[in-house]
Amino acid sequence: MTATLIALDWGTSSLRAYRMGAAGRVLESRRLSWGIMHLPPAPGGTADADPAQGFDRAFEAACGDWLRDEPGLPVIACGMVGSAQGWREAAYLDLPTRLDGLAAQLVRVPRGDAAPLHIVPGLIARGTLPNVMRGEETQVAGVLAGLPPARAGGDVLIGLPGTHSKWVDVRAGEVRHFDTFMTGEVYAVLRGHTILGRTMQEAGPPDEAAFARGLDVAGSQAGRLGVLSTIFSCRTLGLTGELGARAQADYLSGLLVGHEVAALAASLAGGGRTPNIVLCGETALCDRYALALERNGLGRPARVHGATERGLWQLAVASGLAAA
Amino acid sequence: MTATLIALDWGTSSLRAYRMGAAGRVLESRRLSWGIMHLPPAPGGTADADPAQGFDRAFEAACGDWLRDEPGLPVIACGMVGSAQGWREAAYLDLPTRLDGLAAQLVRVPRGDAAPLHIVPGLIARGTLPNVMRGEETQVAGVLAGLPPARAGGDVLIGLPGTHSKWVDVRAGEVRHFDTFMTGEVYAVLRGHTILGRTMQEAGPPDEAAFARGLDVAGSQAGRLGVLSTIFSCRTLGLTGELGARAQADYLSGLLVGHEVAALAASLAGGGRTPNIVLCGETALCDRYALALERNGLGRPARVHGATERGLWQLAVASGLAAA
Repeated sequence: MTATLIALDWGTSSLRAYRMGAAGRVLESRRLSWGIMHLPPAPGGTADADPAQGFDRAFEAACGDWLRDEPGLPVIACGMVGSAQGWREAAYLDLPTRLDGLAAQLVRVPRGDAAPLHIVPGLIARGTLPNVMRGEETQVAGVLAGLPPARAGGDVLIGLPGTHSKWVDVRAGEVRHFDTFMTGEVYAVLRGHTILGRTMQEAGPPDEAAFARGLDVAGSQAGRLGVLSTIFSCRTLGLTGELGARAQADYLSGLLVGHEVAALAASLAGGGRTPNIVLCGETALCDRYALALERNGLGRPARVHGATERGLWQLAVASGLAAA
Repeated sequence: MTATLIALDWGTSSLRAYRMGAAGRVLESRRLSWGIMHLPPAPGGTADADPAQGFDRAFEAACGDWLRDEPGLPVIACGMVGSAQGWREAAYLDLPTRLDGLAAQLVRVPRGDAAPLHIVPGLIARGTLPNVMRGEETQVAGVLAGLPPARAGGDVLIGLPGTHSKWVDVRAGEVRHFDTFMTGEVYAVLRGHTILGRTMQEAGPPDEAAFARGLDVAGSQAGRLGVLSTIFSCRTLGLTGELGARAQADYLSGLLVGHEVAALAASLAGGGRTPNIVLCGETALCDRYALALERNGLGRPARVHGATERGLWQLAVASGLAAA
């Protein structure tokens, strides 16, 4: 089937490639381990004269054959490939911005006689505590495109759980603000490198009761001292026999997600806001965040899948690279 | 000079030994690296038949010569040596307790014909989130002994900053409650194992302005989202050029200590309490906590030094091992 666009989601540790047909339909997709910090080595183990050569090799592995089959296909990419450590830096766009503002600022990377690459810029929220994103702006574009127009044009809070979870405040189609929580990365280091991990045993299936217990503690009076204090209970509940070694990791996850979502709920309440909440991300993780939102009185969130692919398509169309 | 007591502060990673004279005066002290997780290996590299042998060797290195010079000296020890991984487990005492309750529960470890060792038990605060301490109970005894009687008998909050900082609520000489914050350990893993550490450069002297800036952020409106969110600003303030690489570690320290002390201040305000606050610990760290307490409206704390030695002496006297 004839393709109309090649779209790349190119992060730190992996690279996803999509060959898209009419209306952004995904005809074929690939996942490679060539994230920008893990590019394919030069043949023969020599050093590259130009750092771009590593990106070129990864690009060839991801979609070289697609472009040989259909030369001249436009190519768009989002994610850390546009960072200072990426192929070409795409400066952050300031908030507030509409997503067609992103489409107008794609950074073109020439590739000689070959098809150029177009990189989506990230976003920056300036202020006392600045926030940045690269890749998530494209998910936001995809989420909005996946909602009914009446909802997409209203007050929407988009949650993107992950290593660094983002909560993106969109009103009338304009990104106004966003916050970052390092919840996923903090969970990993607490488990991997502190005394809390020493008593944890690998569980089989996820222990949802332990997760819910952690959520409840974070939102309770006992949680008021904050996460630096509550996390110690992983250990002490183990010492007193109240929390089994196999339940401790999921309990810790519940504590951290619970503190994140409780803070978010307090912030929304303080601002008098009741936005429509949409979650987008890995399914099991979104299930956990959905439970946290409900327990914090924020209702049942909508869920959107495939936001990155859809966002790349939307931005390609808005920029004129592809035809709607 | 004639000694009256040998006192050991025996933790996970180190062992301090004190040879004390009349009235608990320290005649000589030693610091060894034989913490309970780093005991001296058996001669010739053989495995020990009995785990107690490693403790015996460490004990001999710490004070064997003192006991040969003055056989029959009583010996007291506090810290992780009384944990399940220690020489002999000394069960936690429940709260509330007076410190003479600790003295009545020393656990005697016989050593054949040699002088027995007496281990101070730790404390446990039961409840939704239990808390435990081992070693800090002895510091608390030492702090109270170092205060004027009128203050020691009042409402005192004792702060013991460190890897796991403890805040101990003492009223009329009775330990009522305590909380733990894993601030020091969380700081170490954020710095050593997350993306935040990657942009930090070793500073020369401590950057107190950066520390104070972190404190202020934690206590501000921007800090309301909690520590999982504010810590990301170490990175983003670096990206925007607002925080130098050499200032990031101290800024992170300020954020974490600031969140801890702000939570403590809110908890005290919620309980309508205005205790006398006393800090005890490493001087530079106590300086930072003192600044955090002042910025959070908790006044200028008193400072006590040498609390562990004094506490060991007090407990030895209260138990009849030594004469006041």
